[in-house]
Amino acid sequence: MTDTPSLYEELRDRIRADQPTGLCTIIDGPNIGAKLLIAPDRASRGTLGNPELDRIVTRDSLAELEAGRSGVRHYGPQGQTTPEDLIDTDTVSVFVESFAAAPQLWIFGAVDFTAALAKVAKVLGYRVLVCDAREVFATRRRFPMADEVMVSWPMPVFVERGAELGPRDAVCVLTHDPKFDVPAVMGALTTRVGYIGVMGSRTTHAKRMERLTEAGLTDPNEIDRLMSPIGLDIGARTPEETAISICAEIIARRTGRKTPSLRDGSGAIHSAQ
Amino acid sequence: MTDTPSLYEELRDRIRADQPTGLCTIIDGPNIGAKLLIAPDRASRGTLGNPELDRIVTRDSLAELEAGRSGVRHYGPQGQTTPEDLIDTDTVSVFVESFAAAPQLWIFGAVDFTAALAKVAKVLGYRVLVCDAREVFATRRRFPMADEVMVSWPMPVFVERGAELGPRDAVCVLTHDPKFDVPAVMGALTTRVGYIGVMGSRTTHAKRMERLTEAGLTDPNEIDRLMSPIGLDIGARTPEETAISICAEIIARRTGRKTPSLRDGSGAIHSAQ
Repeated sequence: MTDTPSLYEELRDRIRADQPTGLCTIIDGPNIGAKLLIAPDRASRGTLGNPELDRIVTRDSLAELEAGRSGVRHYGPQGQTTPEDLIDTDTVSVFVESFAAAPQLWIFGAVDFTAALAKVAKVLGYRVLVCDAREVFATRRRFPMADEVMVSWPMPVFVERGAELGPRDAVCVLTHDPKFDVPAVMGALTTRVGYIGVMGSRTTHAKRMERLTEAGLTDPNEIDRLMSPIGLDIGARTPEETAISICAEIIARRTGRKTPSLRDGSGAIHSAQ
Repeated sequence: MTDTPSLYEELRDRIRADQPTGLCTIIDGPNIGAKLLIAPDRASRGTLGNPELDRIVTRDSLAELEAGRSGVRHYGPQGQTTPEDLIDTDTVSVFVESFAAAPQLWIFGAVDFTAALAKVAKVLGYRVLVCDAREVFATRRRFPMADEVMVSWPMPVFVERGAELGPRDAVCVLTHDPKFDVPAVMGALTTRVGYIGVMGSRTTHAKRMERLTEAGLTDPNEIDRLMSPIGLDIGARTPEETAISICAEIIARRTGRKTPSLRDGSGAIHSAQ
């Protein structure tokens, strides 16, 4: 581990420059203390003592870094990702420390779906903001699982804080009120946010697109950023199932998978009983 | 509401016969006290005062019943499912009371993915059982979110309690240990469980299929019940993302959607970094 000091120097520099970085350290098993420094935009540095272990830990820690999450992961000596050999062979425990803010999910609309979506997003490590203009609905009591509940129209939020949003973040517009959803979508489009989902039936979606066109949304590249109707086509009905379909779409969109979204289908979203 | 007494009679009979049933009652808005009795295997009885509202509440309450969950849902007067008109018009609050046990998820293998899957499944309303033969891993301290943690080999669990499992339930086999996963899969196949997912890379899956064939699994209809590799193809990497992909597949499989599963694809599950 002769290069540990320079590895820490690079870590220090990256933290100071606010660049997301992960430090992986073997805390149990062979090579205790061995380190790997990872970053989304460059090759990893250091080694845990096995190239395949390095490769797997790099992959996993980049995902942890995207979620802004730290914790201990367990591997086989060659990076096996589930402890199939835990009884018969050595296990390597790796502390993955992420130096990055948690990704954000901004939910516009304090409706029945909002609490379910906030709950599932919290499991994924998101910082969740709920925003609605109606103060009787946007209350901490209704959304105890959210990190922040705001009573506001959408535009001021995007004007003041839109710069916080980047490719790892998501905006979901769950209200069907044109007074609220049109500015929420237009606001989200001014940011670099990686996912914009808009809830509604295909009929609602068609009417909303008319209003968005009137509001100035005509660029096909911009329109392509809207995932609407929101969510993967898994037949979700309850708020909780819908939350799963939305989070699955957020993941698929970020990883570039072509798993069918409701947006790319046709017909009613809910099948008839 | 002249038929309310006979509606309660039917409810009583269904509860006594252990048949899943939901009772929907308007608790706020027009027609307070109006009732609708729903069941998966027959037309709904009673009315909430509007045919479209009846249709939507029937749809939602059947889904709630599947999750064994009770609670208040809010609708527009014609069954609008999000409160877009909450400010300008009356809202109907409906108490949906489900008379059915929660669906069950049995997870075999107390590994890193287990806790994440248990957490997401709890949001969906599942009763979660975690089972592993290794008592150092199958502990309540590691899985506080599970309803039950068992130290056992798989077969005794299926012999003693397999009859509890039906189409609403799910079995996920997350260990890669042949001593454990082969009997867990064979045990699950003896039940009526609606979803059987088995974790592993395509290589692990191929080797496992060889062992399952040796164990007597040759019927194509039985093989078709196995979702392996487990989960929808959304590019999941972390345990939490994998949990989302599994729960999305459980929902899609139950609703009959053809959303691509990892099972039906090819190539590596994780893309190269």
